[in-house]
Amino acid sequence: MTPRPRRGRTGRRAGESGTREAILEASRDRFARHGYDGATIRAIAKDAGVDPALVHHFYGTKERLFVAAMRFPVVPSEVLSRLAGIDRDRLGEMLARTVLEVWGSEETRAQSIALLRSAVVNQRAAAMLRGFVTETIVGAVARIAGEADAEYRACLVASQIVGLGIVRYVVALEPVASAPTEDLVAAVAPTIQRYLTGDLRELRDPGGVDGVAALP
Amino acid sequence: MTPRPRRGRTGRRAGESGTREAILEASRDRFARHGYDGATIRAIAKDAGVDPALVHHFYGTKERLFVAAMRFPVVPSEVLSRLAGIDRDRLGEMLARTVLEVWGSEETRAQSIALLRSAVVNQRAAAMLRGFVTETIVGAVARIAGEADAEYRACLVASQIVGLGIVRYVVALEPVASAPTEDLVAAVAPTIQRYLTGDLRELRDPGGVDGVAALP
Repeated sequence: MTPRPRRGRTGRRAGESGTREAILEASRDRFARHGYDGATIRAIAKDAGVDPALVHHFYGTKERLFVAAMRFPVVPSEVLSRLAGIDRDRLGEMLARTVLEVWGSEETRAQSIALLRSAVVNQRAAAMLRGFVTETIVGAVARIAGEADAEYRACLVASQIVGLGIVRYVVALEPVASAPTEDLVAAVAPTIQRYLTGDLRELRDPGGVDGVAALP
Repeated sequence: MTPRPRRGRTGRRAGESGTREAILEASRDRFARHGYDGATIRAIAKDAGVDPALVHHFYGTKERLFVAAMRFPVVPSEVLSRLAGIDRDRLGEMLARTVLEVWGSEETRAQSIALLRSAVVNQRAAAMLRGFVTETIVGAVARIAGEADAEYRACLVASQIVGLGIVRYVVALEPVASAPTEDLVAAVAPTIQRYLTGDLRELRDPGGVDGVAALP
């Protein structure tokens, strides 16, 4: 990370970036201690010693403040709102492609990996992400795929996306680690599509066929 | 963890467990430094100051030695050999159920989580697991699903399993965190089945329909 240049002459830029940093610092602390849903912009502003209106001015919504503070790689509501007009049968493809393209950029990939790592290692980070995902993503999935099972569907989509990110970038298992984006879109899009809009209970009766009893 | 009882009278048990511990310690070190494929039982035995025959006597194969040293939750070749006789169309279901049942036991679940965490955080652990997975699992997948794309298929299966483990147990995202095993088997079995035996390039031409161009 390169240090921010100081603007000694006017002081304004240094002051603004100092204020922003204080807000982000207060956000990280509040989100960690109170979770995404429990942290309010009013309380964060108070901790940072600024007016709540300034937080809104800089960051707009709590979602965007979280994205900035946690270096979350995308603004979920933005990505998901773009899916609203898509042919329902191609949501899986679009979501798979979007995620893989976000990871295609070095900066957002690095942010994604850092987030995955912290969620896996740090229970507080996991709880914070859990709240964020639930508030920002589940609602959008419900609008896209219907209310029924929206949380369950969002979770399953997350499981495939998180697992793909770990195998491709963290554990770097070949040949997925260096597979072209389009190959992986073709591979995982039907999975995501089914989790979003498919029948998730379609498995045949497991007791009905010989030799498929559970392994001990 | 309860401490092992000392057997002061004969000394034999303490000696054997001491020898086993020395072998496991040497294994962890060798696997970490040379990877799964580069570590040999001969070299591990030398490091531990024992005869290679004793390592074979205690642990049988290098795979089992790795499983013991790394507390890997299952012996992959054992699980996978049981899949050999299964109806090809139900491999996904069987594998999903096996994994979820392994995680159903507290000890193996804890082992799995610890492994996931170390692979995500520690590059050396990731490299070691990568070698182990490649040597022990890819071959079995090739025998089950055919040589073509066996590594790619195994990777994709791993991505869904790893992601499910993280969402269910590490980040504990509801409702997947507390979903019944059978619900999750029904949800992910078709994914795993397709990754093992399905067409992974079946996506329709992404350029052919309006409104599905890649998001910027």
